[in-house]
Amino acid sequence: MIKKLVFAIFLFTSLNAQGQENLNFNKNKEITSPEISVDNSLTFRLMAPNAKKVELQGDLLGKSDPVAMTKQNDGLWSYTTSPLKPELYSYSFIVDGLKIRDANNVYQIRDVASVVNVVIVPGGKADNYLVKDVPHGTVSKRWYKSPGNEKDRRISVYTPPGYEDDKKKYPVFYLLHGMGGDEEAWLALGRTAQILDNLIAQGKATPMIVVMPNGNVAQAAAPGEDSKGQYKPTMQLPNTMDGKMEETFMDIIKFIEGNYRVKADHAHRAIAGLSMGGFHSLHISRFYPKTFDYVGLFSPAIMPFGKTTSPVYENFEVTLKNQFDKGLKLYWIGIGKTDFLYKSVADYRKKLDETGAKYIYSESEGGHTWSNWRDYLVLFTQQLFKKP
Amino acid sequence: MIKKLVFAIFLFTSLNAQGQENLNFNKNKEITSPEISVDNSLTFRLMAPNAKKVELQGDLLGKSDPVAMTKQNDGLWSYTTSPLKPELYSYSFIVDGLKIRDANNVYQIRDVASVVNVVIVPGGKADNYLVKDVPHGTVSKRWYKSPGNEKDRRISVYTPPGYEDDKKKYPVFYLLHGMGGDEEAWLALGRTAQILDNLIAQGKATPMIVVMPNGNVAQAAAPGEDSKGQYKPTMQLPNTMDGKMEETFMDIIKFIEGNYRVKADHAHRAIAGLSMGGFHSLHISRFYPKTFDYVGLFSPAIMPFGKTTSPVYENFEVTLKNQFDKGLKLYWIGIGKTDFLYKSVADYRKKLDETGAKYIYSESEGGHTWSNWRDYLVLFTQQLFKKP
Repeated sequence: MIKKLVFAIFLFTSLNAQGQENLNFNKNKEITSPEISVDNSLTFRLMAPNAKKVELQGDLLGKSDPVAMTKQNDGLWSYTTSPLKPELYSYSFIVDGLKIRDANNVYQIRDVASVVNVVIVPGGKADNYLVKDVPHGTVSKRWYKSPGNEKDRRISVYTPPGYEDDKKKYPVFYLLHGMGGDEEAWLALGRTAQILDNLIAQGKATPMIVVMPNGNVAQAAAPGEDSKGQYKPTMQLPNTMDGKMEETFMDIIKFIEGNYRVKADHAHRAIAGLSMGGFHSLHISRFYPKTFDYVGLFSPAIMPFGKTTSPVYENFEVTLKNQFDKGLKLYWIGIGKTDFLYKSVADYRKKLDETGAKYIYSESEGGHTWSNWRDYLVLFTQQLFKKP
Repeated sequence: MIKKLVFAIFLFTSLNAQGQENLNFNKNKEITSPEISVDNSLTFRLMAPNAKKVELQGDLLGKSDPVAMTKQNDGLWSYTTSPLKPELYSYSFIVDGLKIRDANNVYQIRDVASVVNVVIVPGGKADNYLVKDVPHGTVSKRWYKSPGNEKDRRISVYTPPGYEDDKKKYPVFYLLHGMGGDEEAWLALGRTAQILDNLIAQGKATPMIVVMPNGNVAQAAAPGEDSKGQYKPTMQLPNTMDGKMEETFMDIIKFIEGNYRVKADHAHRAIAGLSMGGFHSLHISRFYPKTFDYVGLFSPAIMPFGKTTSPVYENFEVTLKNQFDKGLKLYWIGIGKTDFLYKSVADYRKKLDETGAKYIYSESEGGHTWSNWRDYLVLFTQQLFKKP
């Protein structure tokens, strides 16, 4: 044991001497931030002896304004929240006006061009987001050929526990991200693998394959994962909502159905997406009627089209009616009461009502947030592939 | 286009109002950091109008001391390095004594309990680390049953381009991390998937499966990926070098050979590891002689054993001689001239020489660094599965 400890100390010393960035570790090793108390309050801590003002900012405060942290004599700043509802929260510190990450919390997620610290307050719905002692599915990052986009593209695939061990065929759920996202978004911010593992273990969801493509057809892959190298991600990309994603979606289905043991029929295909991904799901399911029996629109963008840019968007009313006439089992729409897309979704629901289309509408509190999208994923997934 | 832009702006405003952490993006959107110039110098930038002193620290400086950055009138601090050799570098800013990440660089890697910004200066050997327009392998995160450790454990598996499309059987390379690492380390800091993709595309490496297990048998998975939740990673874990990893390694081989199309014989198995993983590779290959024809020790820890803690470490000389007597095709040792483990490796080489064991020894500049381990991976991988 002593020898091992000596080895570890040597190793550290050596790494530090070579600038391998473990200095924070030494300085901060006694600091826990955030600390989750039994009452589900969180205590945040930052060692910053020279700072004049340190603030905490994040969705866990329930407001966008930051709150001041308190300094102790040794230079340790801290702040304890009131007890929080179970949730995956993100936060930052602001030190004398400069927004920084919490060096004591290695759990971080990239959201478009920002990296945020995250923390899960357990219990309730957030238990679905935790890694539990249940059978785990496999998460793969693969590359598929997209002839429609003339490139190889990266895709995330979740296969359920048992997939590799049996010979069964599985249903497939295509799950699409929003603007600024990519094939990593639903796994990182959406906790899809954990949610599926947990719902399947509880018998609440049918074992299924979840396919998370990159909806930005101008991209081959998430930032840093393609040959463009390390560039600064941006929210706005070319060809995101001009029909190209929808027109080339069959490249994805073809790849999945050619490479996985799937039930390749409409009764065993689902598609859903958030925001721009809701827009894509709406149009893909309409443009290819009788392809998906399950459609989910999570806070969907509903674009008005004065002039259509692609055959995908033409004859909207007729093709929408055709989609419903040909039959599907679930058309699910979820949106938050304060979402900036609320009115356009309400208008779209009117259109659906006028055509006599049947759908399930689920209105939640809150707005255009990952908190809602995780909720919608949990709700929607439990309804998939169960109808006769 | 205008509608799409309006949508993007709406989306942003909404996200910000809800504390979704994109404020940095707005404030910093014109700032590029680091910027790679044509001469391979890097310019780092940080907007910090209130800071009194901003420094840059990182292995790219060639020294552990930080250098001062220069402030412009608008509060933008910057520093330009001299032209740098191609490499994957890591760095931090130090703002009035507080070490922080670069908010304009989303490319970050966790190294034990620290998260560091990284940047790849392209060209030369670093071209192996880049994602190129070549066929890409698949990276999967799976869970396997380890009866020896009485738990399910997470494992990273790289399958080469074409694996899913043909019926061929592939050789397998088991690649082990060092102390403080886990099943993510070789992929993140080691750039294993990129290196393999590129070497295979160039015809320099035989297409192979690379298996990256978690060498900390007390852990089921990397921090945040198991049911322990979000805790602070530590360098030192129980049962890392007490024989348990070696004793239970057959659980991993059994899983891989039962789940992948592999050539399941000694001529098509390789094992290598860095530091603690070199220690593991040394002992696993010795404890199970004639199992691996290719063995790589990258800056290996060579522990002196006064009192052995496991049957794995008993009869060291005899079993080592037995391993070589039974035959293998490559026993490769790489270490840096300034590595703190240099002397113990020199002693080990003497022991090998005394027993008449044949091995390849590769001495590099530098020390106990990922830069060296990536080099060793590139060198070692090209020698695998090529000997008759």
